Amino acid sequence: MKIATLSIGDELIFGEVVDTNAAHISERLYSVGFKVQRQLTVGDNEQDIVEAIEMLAVKCDVVVVTGGLGPTVDDITARSAAKITGHELVLNEEALARLQRFSEKLGGNLHPSNEKQALMPANATLIPNPVGTACGFYLTHNGRFLFFLPGVPGEMACMLDETVIPFIVSRVKRRTFLQTKVFKVFGPSEAEVDALMDGVADEAAGVSVAFCVNFPEIQVKLRVEGHEEAVVAELLTRAGDKARQRLNGYVFAEDGETIDTVVASLFRETGFTLSLAESCTGGLVAKRITDIPGSSAYFLEGIVTYSNTAKTQLLDVPQRLLDEKGAVSSEVAVAMALGARKLSGSDIALAVTGIAGPDGGTAEKPVGTVYMALAGSNGCQAKRYTFHGDREEIRLITSFMAMDWLRKRLLSLRSAEVTD
Amino acid sequence: MKIATLSIGDELIFGEVVDTNAAHISERLYSVGFKVQRQLTVGDNEQDIVEAIEMLAVKCDVVVVTGGLGPTVDDITARSAAKITGHELVLNEEALARLQRFSEKLGGNLHPSNEKQALMPANATLIPNPVGTACGFYLTHNGRFLFFLPGVPGEMACMLDETVIPFIVSRVKRRTFLQTKVFKVFGPSEAEVDALMDGVADEAAGVSVAFCVNFPEIQVKLRVEGHEEAVVAELLTRAGDKARQRLNGYVFAEDGETIDTVVASLFRETGFTLSLAESCTGGLVAKRITDIPGSSAYFLEGIVTYSNTAKTQLLDVPQRLLDEKGAVSSEVAVAMALGARKLSGSDIALAVTGIAGPDGGTAEKPVGTVYMALAGSNGCQAKRYTFHGDREEIRLITSFMAMDWLRKRLLSLRSAEVTD
Repeated sequence: MKIATLSIGDELIFGEVVDTNAAHISERLYSVGFKVQRQLTVGDNEQDIVEAIEMLAVKCDVVVVTGGLGPTVDDITARSAAKITGHELVLNEEALARLQRFSEKLGGNLHPSNEKQALMPANATLIPNPVGTACGFYLTHNGRFLFFLPGVPGEMACMLDETVIPFIVSRVKRRTFLQTKVFKVFGPSEAEVDALMDGVADEAAGVSVAFCVNFPEIQVKLRVEGHEEAVVAELLTRAGDKARQRLNGYVFAEDGETIDTVVASLFRETGFTLSLAESCTGGLVAKRITDIPGSSAYFLEGIVTYSNTAKTQLLDVPQRLLDEKGAVSSEVAVAMALGARKLSGSDIALAVTGIAGPDGGTAEKPVGTVYMALAGSNGCQAKRYTFHGDREEIRLITSFMAMDWLRKRLLSLRSAEVTD
Repeated sequence: MKIATLSIGDELIFGEVVDTNAAHISERLYSVGFKVQRQLTVGDNEQDIVEAIEMLAVKCDVVVVTGGLGPTVDDITARSAAKITGHELVLNEEALARLQRFSEKLGGNLHPSNEKQALMPANATLIPNPVGTACGFYLTHNGRFLFFLPGVPGEMACMLDETVIPFIVSRVKRRTFLQTKVFKVFGPSEAEVDALMDGVADEAAGVSVAFCVNFPEIQVKLRVEGHEEAVVAELLTRAGDKARQRLNGYVFAEDGETIDTVVASLFRETGFTLSLAESCTGGLVAKRITDIPGSSAYFLEGIVTYSNTAKTQLLDVPQRLLDEKGAVSSEVAVAMALGARKLSGSDIALAVTGIAGPDGGTAEKPVGTVYMALAGSNGCQAKRYTFHGDREEIRLITSFMAMDWLRKRLLSLRSAEVTD
């Protein structure tokens, strides 16, 4: 079965908004054994929409269309669908009733322009929208299945899972089984990772390897494809073991894990507590820590000391150090970490100070110079880094390195505990 | 001139990575007067790549291809390009020399697998890559221009601006002029915004209106298209004035501005200083403030008080309040804001405490309950909000509301200053 996605919207084709729907639909379909073959995007233009659907339907059995079902004048997907199939646009009573109930639930009346959202081609079947006003629909055209969903990601995702995927799965007998294993590595270059993985892929057996740079990490993806689920699983396990061995020491996370979830698990597991003192990252490390539900169990406090006064008053960084060494220095990083640990009473305290740019660099300490310090029961270490990139990239890689240092420290603390 | 983009990568077609290149290319081309008509994505599969390029080249004069030029085995774009044009893949000496120089600059030797990146179809012209190893190339095929760029966004963007766009602009005589004006609004629903804008569009004159939901804001986009630049500009100014009047009070930013840059400008302009005390947002508000270069001029410090101890010790929140009212309460928000203001000596202090979920909600204070407080020279106000969504959405809209409150406060402080 061949599947395509079509994303509709002037905001997409003009580059004002990045489309995430095609990726989401592809990922969900892939997880149940279907590969999307093409993702196409066109603007809110009837001729372009009609041409796109007709072109995709030549090669693909299923086209999942998103966008253009809203209440506003520029939403013309339903009209285009009617044109393709040669049916009239008619008011769908069930869709209208749903719209009215939805508006009442939110405590308001249905806005007249929302009624337009209940219009669909006469041969269409409603796809209910449990979380918004735009109903979807599906229809068959020349033996192809065309699904139409709203472009709002949350609504689209809900309708995809509740209606579209069960429909597609129920229509297909023999399926290809696809399984994926992802290793997230940090350190070596893409070419070096490629060389390390030499020979892991096995085209004849259906085992492939792909690489994906997701700054600052590289993702190594093993994919196995076959007709028997058990064989696919066995091949993937074997390829995974081989890859893990080859990438030994560089892997910080696997599959759905991220550096942030790995660090969170290690904190939960070890029972250690954390405090942070951030300067150039300005709260980004604290944000990453608190992105994870349950982080209040180990994260005590974070201090964003953007001014020197904050560093001296809150963290007891000696004014003398700031004067002599500068705010961006190994000594100040150490003083910040020790100050944060003392203030919070945490087991571990991490401090970051650096120059994220675009201004503030000098010959000796250019933009991208970052000092980090990690304080624990055994004292405090500091490291100096020189990162390249713009302000956003420097802040991003700095926060990543901070998370990675926490990961390594927690791993060594955990193994020390086991040894004791 | 019709233009299409083609993004290549299994990671895209499997939905593991969201493609940002198509949007970036479209946005850059739109800014110089060209509309991209189609954005297509296919996987790392020779047949799919060849078919996609041939299909796009039927209708489009220019195809900008990104991805698949890396050093690894799954990068097969150059081979596919050779196949389409019927030319051999040959080693491009200039590309190889550039690769070697680039490796030396980074202090290493060229990895053998990187040499593959200097192979291109015999009829291709090199597009230099000033920031990475993957060179690009362009060639003509059946009178169409095909550009091939690497998929790494930073490298692609650089080569697009330095080579592709100047090339396209130089090839076209009479151009259509496109101008866009964006209003970012917050408050009314999409249908309400649509109703407010009724009659602003004027199809005959080339003035169109589009809406785009970018949670939690709605973007209203005016676009004017025409053949005379001065007329286009005049029409856009008039439509913009009309729209601004209609949307009066809801607009928080225009065009490239964001809520974050608007708040930054207001801080710079008024000279006021800020401190933050965050609980449920865990550093996200501080991150938004410090995302903006120069924020150290007004942002003194941020305290992320995730634990109750941090609230009492750092911010002097009375233990009694925490016991009687709970950490998520109007009283504690006020105490946090007053504590942060006193501690930092800032003019304004903003505090946030709430339940981001997924756990911690009660019947009285469900997940999504957030209290904010803003302290200034005239005392301290608090507000209660009930937001809906998952942890990420609740943290996002909470941080947005915090920025919006700062914006409104700074606006009223500014007008008070003018009146004095």
